[in-house]
Amino acid sequence: MSSTSESPHARTREATRRRRRRSTPLAPQRHSDYRQLRNTLPRAGVLTGDQIEAIQESALKVLRDLGIRILLPEARECLRAAGATVDEATALVKLEPELVLKALDLAPRNIEVTAADASRTLHLGGDHLYFGAGAGCPNVTDLDRGRHPGTLETFREFIKLQQHFDIIHKLGPSVEPQDIPLHLRHYAMMRSQMQLSDKVPFIYSRGRRQVLDSFEMLRLARGLSEEQFRATPRTMTVINSNSPRQLDIPMSRGIMDFAEWGQVSVITPFCLAGAMAPITIAGALALSHAEALAGITLAQSVRPGAPVVYGAFSSNVDMRSGAPVFGTPEHARSNFAAGQLARHIGLPWRSGAGSAANAPDIQGASETQFAVWSCVLAGAHLVFHSAGWLEGGLTVSCEKFITDVEVLQMLAETLVPVPCESEDIAFEAIGAVEPGGHFFGAEHTMSRYSTQFYEPLVWDWSNYGQWREAGAASTAQVANGVWKKALEDFEPPPLDSANLEAMEGFIARRIEAGGAPIDG
Amino acid sequence: MSSTSESPHARTREATRRRRRRSTPLAPQRHSDYRQLRNTLPRAGVLTGDQIEAIQESALKVLRDLGIRILLPEARECLRAAGATVDEATALVKLEPELVLKALDLAPRNIEVTAADASRTLHLGGDHLYFGAGAGCPNVTDLDRGRHPGTLETFREFIKLQQHFDIIHKLGPSVEPQDIPLHLRHYAMMRSQMQLSDKVPFIYSRGRRQVLDSFEMLRLARGLSEEQFRATPRTMTVINSNSPRQLDIPMSRGIMDFAEWGQVSVITPFCLAGAMAPITIAGALALSHAEALAGITLAQSVRPGAPVVYGAFSSNVDMRSGAPVFGTPEHARSNFAAGQLARHIGLPWRSGAGSAANAPDIQGASETQFAVWSCVLAGAHLVFHSAGWLEGGLTVSCEKFITDVEVLQMLAETLVPVPCESEDIAFEAIGAVEPGGHFFGAEHTMSRYSTQFYEPLVWDWSNYGQWREAGAASTAQVANGVWKKALEDFEPPPLDSANLEAMEGFIARRIEAGGAPIDG
Repeated sequence: MSSTSESPHARTREATRRRRRRSTPLAPQRHSDYRQLRNTLPRAGVLTGDQIEAIQESALKVLRDLGIRILLPEARECLRAAGATVDEATALVKLEPELVLKALDLAPRNIEVTAADASRTLHLGGDHLYFGAGAGCPNVTDLDRGRHPGTLETFREFIKLQQHFDIIHKLGPSVEPQDIPLHLRHYAMMRSQMQLSDKVPFIYSRGRRQVLDSFEMLRLARGLSEEQFRATPRTMTVINSNSPRQLDIPMSRGIMDFAEWGQVSVITPFCLAGAMAPITIAGALALSHAEALAGITLAQSVRPGAPVVYGAFSSNVDMRSGAPVFGTPEHARSNFAAGQLARHIGLPWRSGAGSAANAPDIQGASETQFAVWSCVLAGAHLVFHSAGWLEGGLTVSCEKFITDVEVLQMLAETLVPVPCESEDIAFEAIGAVEPGGHFFGAEHTMSRYSTQFYEPLVWDWSNYGQWREAGAASTAQVANGVWKKALEDFEPPPLDSANLEAMEGFIARRIEAGGAPIDG
Repeated sequence: MSSTSESPHARTREATRRRRRRSTPLAPQRHSDYRQLRNTLPRAGVLTGDQIEAIQESALKVLRDLGIRILLPEARECLRAAGATVDEATALVKLEPELVLKALDLAPRNIEVTAADASRTLHLGGDHLYFGAGAGCPNVTDLDRGRHPGTLETFREFIKLQQHFDIIHKLGPSVEPQDIPLHLRHYAMMRSQMQLSDKVPFIYSRGRRQVLDSFEMLRLARGLSEEQFRATPRTMTVINSNSPRQLDIPMSRGIMDFAEWGQVSVITPFCLAGAMAPITIAGALALSHAEALAGITLAQSVRPGAPVVYGAFSSNVDMRSGAPVFGTPEHARSNFAAGQLARHIGLPWRSGAGSAANAPDIQGASETQFAVWSCVLAGAHLVFHSAGWLEGGLTVSCEKFITDVEVLQMLAETLVPVPCESEDIAFEAIGAVEPGGHFFGAEHTMSRYSTQFYEPLVWDWSNYGQWREAGAASTAQVANGVWKKALEDFEPPPLDSANLEAMEGFIARRIEAGGAPIDG
């Protein structure tokens, strides 16, 4: 009967018993360099060449005929100097296609963002693939402490978790440390990133004073001269336009400051179809494309060759409630089309995953995985919000972070080519086992068994009886143990303490002087 | 601040309130014909042309030099007559490459499997894509009744659920009705499929008498002459070889009977790397390929042009316990390579998803979705075990069936091309909304809002407060309500009652005569 049920359990039971007797611990082996992934999957294509052109043309027409409202006077002035038409009464800026296309020519095709540890430097472009954790959440949740507003303690926990797992490639502010006043918050956030991690840090564009403070903290903590700092991208910000067709003061300022200092702006309109953008995928993308091109044009007008990442993070809303949703089919199809637009203009590009679920549960895991596959098939170089996001970004979950990391690690292992030498095809090994026998004890198996397969972080592969006896833990409960262990074992990477002290001196002086309000 | 956090919640709150006031119910719209999917995603390629050739050559060498043990004397005789070398003492059959390649030439490139409802006919080949539910499980579980051995009642429930959801394209025996004696079980299983569904039914290869009984039930229930039945494929069986290199009596018999009657054998070696196959992906596939080719050769030797589906369902085992696991990176990479082998020989092909989890929870959902994506990217025409499988196939879960169906529906919607006409790109609609405004009330939105987006079956998109107030249900709890409602509302499709009665008469006579033991 077993032959008809695709159930090999009976046949492997004996081998199982044999294996348990063996005492060698199985070391997890990584087939993949988790720190530097290459996206070996094919790219999804949903638009024809003509359709890509049509969307780009419409976006250029939006910028030429309708314009974009830019609230920062200096940004309007900068674009006017570059050749844009500005109406100061309405703050509307209109850009000729030639100006925009010239900016696209100036923007670099590949960007290297240098990390404190060289193995963690980001090489944006080509077939590189980098994941970021869920970020920007006001709340945090875990099974022990429940859902609550973010604190500096939980902010630091998430920096540690992001540092711990190689599959998270750059830092992001998973949770907002709401217990620190806004004019001092950037000191606490940057200090945590500099102390606890050797990955590329993130800086919010919350006004010039906070941005320049953060640049200085990074410069000091990593022992760089100002020249060295300006010469090489070392940090990133995310620029979200206020879709439709508007760029507010902190965002415009952020583009200008990051461009001037040679640091990376990830220019990401957040065009949710049906809300801040047309309800059609092509329409939402046309608007998103126009806004991204406007931001890129501003950056290149400040400093030709400024490092900018093309961002597209266009999902949809629940038309029953107006709430943003993620990991939907529309999100996936938007990603595919956005990837084609990004390759059309030739810039490194960023998308995002996410979930609208309220708990670390089946829905959230499913939505996030769905979104992640679509980002990878879309060829995104940076996939943000790929671990931990709940409630469309209102909360980040420690347990969901871990279960999402599991899926990211599985994806990393899936990208590894299939070895196909003669010893892999294994004719001799096949001949060495009798018909109806098994390969458990074979030399070909024994010499490879400890390193051949991905060993999961959270998934529990014990059988039903064992699982029940051990307490029938849910996946989230297992994940709860994993993140706590990671925090317990955490050790900061080796970093120069004199440099960190220099940063502390600067922070003390700045706090003494009153900190830096956002309106700066 | 909201501009920097990718959190559009504040901005959509007002629109949300406005929307709730609207009383029009939102009908779920399907962008996709769930009954006939076209796989528009690109195919993953992990092997070079030379590597594909090398695996095929090794498989042919296995069949020529090592041979395959075939336990059914008539099958050996049939292959001997076709030109194979047979050693009756060991039951070992050796096949020359020419014989195998001739069989591959004879096998049809496309197979149409006719369903009672023409819209559900399977067109195997090309870019068609069909999903099957988790099948072959001895146990069944749901949140109300817990885990228990399968019964006819639960078997029938799963046939109803499979019939209800269009995204499940063919019937499978999700759960084994263990309360019916084996010599009578096929009557109960076939009766249920014939009464409750107009989709293509499944028949186990459990001996000639059961197979021929089942053919006759299908023939009578659908009002076909024997000639009509033989002329067109209308049902499928799964042939699992007893890897390595062995085909037992019921499986060999099944290949022969299905070939003779012009019905479909899905010839699927179940080569778990590290257990019944070499631990390397290439080695497991070489063995799997050899066994599949042997089965295909037997079918073509019985009847040239017999409809056979190339099966590859090669995952790995947990090397700690020897237990089979699914939805792993190795499973995914095997799928990619198997798809390339299938396209190399040009036959329709079948893979499988699955999960080794013990409960309808994050792990199970994640493993199954991971496996499903890999099957789709591998270009499988039939993806079995894509909804409900737990414990590597020992149990099928009602709730997991529903949450997996949700993901399959999302995938179906994702395969739909992105409309990109002028009205989709929506230049005018963009111009009609002020900078910083929103599109909720726009004519372009209003005329499309009820049909534009996929509306989920299970996912709960209410906000955290609403979700808590409503009882903070887990995804599995929501799914529990969905499957019960589907069963409650179930109505059998319109089927000819006189034909069904003719089938009942046959069943009664056969039971009267003692039924049909498996050894027939």
